[in-house]
Amino acid sequence: MTRALPVVADRLWSDLMALADLTEPDKPFTRRAFSPLFLEGRKFLTDRLQAAGLTTRVDAAGNLIGRLEGEEPFAAVIALGSHSDTVQRGGRFDGIAGVVAALEVARVLKERGERLRHTIEVIDCLAEEPTDFGLSCVGSRGLSGALDHHMLAMTNPAGERLDEAIRGVGGDPNHIADAVRSDIIAFLELHIEQGPVLEATGIDIGIVTSIVGIRRIEIIFEGQAAHAGTAPMDLRHDAAVPAAATLLEVRRVADALALEGGGYFVATIGIVQVEPGSSNVVPRRARLVIDARSSDPDTIKRFSNHIDAFSAAVAADFRVDRSRFLILSDGAASDCDPNLRGTLIRASNQLGLRHVDIASGAGHDAAFMSRICPAAMVFVPCLKGMSHTPDEWADKSAIVGGTAVLLEAVLEIDRTNNALPG
Amino acid sequence: MTRALPVVADRLWSDLMALADLTEPDKPFTRRAFSPLFLEGRKFLTDRLQAAGLTTRVDAAGNLIGRLEGEEPFAAVIALGSHSDTVQRGGRFDGIAGVVAALEVARVLKERGERLRHTIEVIDCLAEEPTDFGLSCVGSRGLSGALDHHMLAMTNPAGERLDEAIRGVGGDPNHIADAVRSDIIAFLELHIEQGPVLEATGIDIGIVTSIVGIRRIEIIFEGQAAHAGTAPMDLRHDAAVPAAATLLEVRRVADALALEGGGYFVATIGIVQVEPGSSNVVPRRARLVIDARSSDPDTIKRFSNHIDAFSAAVAADFRVDRSRFLILSDGAASDCDPNLRGTLIRASNQLGLRHVDIASGAGHDAAFMSRICPAAMVFVPCLKGMSHTPDEWADKSAIVGGTAVLLEAVLEIDRTNNALPG
Repeated sequence: MTRALPVVADRLWSDLMALADLTEPDKPFTRRAFSPLFLEGRKFLTDRLQAAGLTTRVDAAGNLIGRLEGEEPFAAVIALGSHSDTVQRGGRFDGIAGVVAALEVARVLKERGERLRHTIEVIDCLAEEPTDFGLSCVGSRGLSGALDHHMLAMTNPAGERLDEAIRGVGGDPNHIADAVRSDIIAFLELHIEQGPVLEATGIDIGIVTSIVGIRRIEIIFEGQAAHAGTAPMDLRHDAAVPAAATLLEVRRVADALALEGGGYFVATIGIVQVEPGSSNVVPRRARLVIDARSSDPDTIKRFSNHIDAFSAAVAADFRVDRSRFLILSDGAASDCDPNLRGTLIRASNQLGLRHVDIASGAGHDAAFMSRICPAAMVFVPCLKGMSHTPDEWADKSAIVGGTAVLLEAVLEIDRTNNALPG
Repeated sequence: MTRALPVVADRLWSDLMALADLTEPDKPFTRRAFSPLFLEGRKFLTDRLQAAGLTTRVDAAGNLIGRLEGEEPFAAVIALGSHSDTVQRGGRFDGIAGVVAALEVARVLKERGERLRHTIEVIDCLAEEPTDFGLSCVGSRGLSGALDHHMLAMTNPAGERLDEAIRGVGGDPNHIADAVRSDIIAFLELHIEQGPVLEATGIDIGIVTSIVGIRRIEIIFEGQAAHAGTAPMDLRHDAAVPAAATLLEVRRVADALALEGGGYFVATIGIVQVEPGSSNVVPRRARLVIDARSSDPDTIKRFSNHIDAFSAAVAADFRVDRSRFLILSDGAASDCDPNLRGTLIRASNQLGLRHVDIASGAGHDAAFMSRICPAAMVFVPCLKGMSHTPDEWADKSAIVGGTAVLLEAVLEIDRTNNALPG
């Protein structure tokens, strides 16, 4: 049994739907970071934050921050947030559920008429999803000091630089270090689960234990183009063949590691490119990008080493050169803060909501925030685990329940923590 | 020992190089059918044919035809030719070697000052290479009555119809049946081998025994897109996995059939498309196009049936829908005419050129021509068997030798055949 939740469900839901509706009309739900629609979404959020009595600013890294000053002078900050950008043809909830939940928590706190000891910040982290610049979590990298000058110089296919794009949303990339924070004592992020566990088990709240580490690996095979009619089978150097064998091996090993029980493990090959791509030409080049994720860094290394050896060997078997095996990125797994997890569990219990520990297979801004402060996450159930698709759905009651957990957690943190900056 | 060859080597070679040089400057050697450059090539050929004393016309199917009238009234036609279009980034020789050789034969015949009993035609067949309309051998299909109204209505990605494109090169698609010929008693085509056999064995002339049949098969797997981080391995419907398994099986079976010795066999998967193609999304769709070729129709059917069953089964294994197994095209194998092959062998012997029987793994205009008249082909050696690449190369002496064989063959046919139309 749940008790009456202390947030205003209809207001929260209508803000969420209004922001989701700011989408490219011909491909819902698309609101890519840096786009005009993204800036419309930012304007919507800014208006709502100001209407709730928060002051707003955009920091040097392009994050939108709403601030409710605490009672203590120079009060430390309890931050809540997520991101308002989407993938192409994404869903209504990924990201903005956490931003609008944070807005609602701030609104309720303001309406109580009683200032907290701590300052509350609502943060819309810039560009959490993979961008055309080849970087994700741009804003939370900025907040945590992980946005370096090499990254700021990355370019998109149109040749625009990331630092220019950050300036375009109101950031100040020349003073990027100004975005780095040392005054936050807790970061809480609400997000839809993006997986099937909560819905399948009928549990209201997922308390995230860790956010997986993600290793992305690029493999390139180079053979030799030849006429598909005249090149005898035994003289071919077909780059697609070892690529296909590697794809199957990645699946086989991932299935085994997932069953092994040594922590969460998944691996995916989502990018397969075969050139020149004509039906009558033997492929001269094949490119794969592997995305491997685990809560256990050793498992990722073991997997990666095996695929390295396998792909080299199978290329040699088919007289093809495996010209690249490159680790494109290697994000470490992040544990959520045990004290904050305890706070979230108590909050769920107080509200009569069932909770379960859960590992996050997706990356989140909270992973970068955990580098500079205690961070934790609340997952809420979503339909069939679907995400990054227009079919993504979460019930109003699920979002409202998670938001109420955030509010209770903020109140406990404010009561029990020293409000002066450490 | 070869005797002095009866064709003018320098003239032949300089025409060949001049035509090859009509290429898109930034991607040699590209002269796509229907393009402005293609029409420049046609103008070059028309000028050369007319300078040699031939009358020229473009037939209803868009073939450029140069004609040297025979002595007999209503004389039957001995036709020689190939095609002047190229693939993207193709070579200097594929196609035009046969057209320029035919031009040179006609030139020498005219210069001898003695009319043959038969009419000689030099034919530049329209669009032999795969076009953006999804059809190849457009012109030779037209000559042989294999260009139907369904094909004429095919469109390219820009939405242009094939019949409009044929009209754009001077054809008359409303009267396409006018292109069909019944007055040709022999069609001879010179082509570079596009394979390694002649060069490796040091033999001058390949006498083609048969042109392979080509079956193109499209297979589509449809699974379900999912988040690469949160979709557990055992709940995935990854369309790329059965596609990879099918690609490996095609290679395994093709290797076995090539070794089996029941006729020439090769199979290639040159098109592999995986969607949506993001590193962090489990593939929802994968598309393969298989190109299978054999001199034996039963072998192609056996291969095709096996891959049909295999791809359906492996899709089910991975909980993916194999939504399409479609035979896109199915060209029958063509035997070259035994009498004409005998003529080509005698011509080689007379010229002191070594010859060998050889099967063609590539499709050629001669395959369609063989539907309406005796047809045969002369292959000449090319560097390392390379073709459909800017590295494609054939020595001047090889082209000259093959052209001389054509000339001798024409003279024998003219002497020994009834010159009246059958």
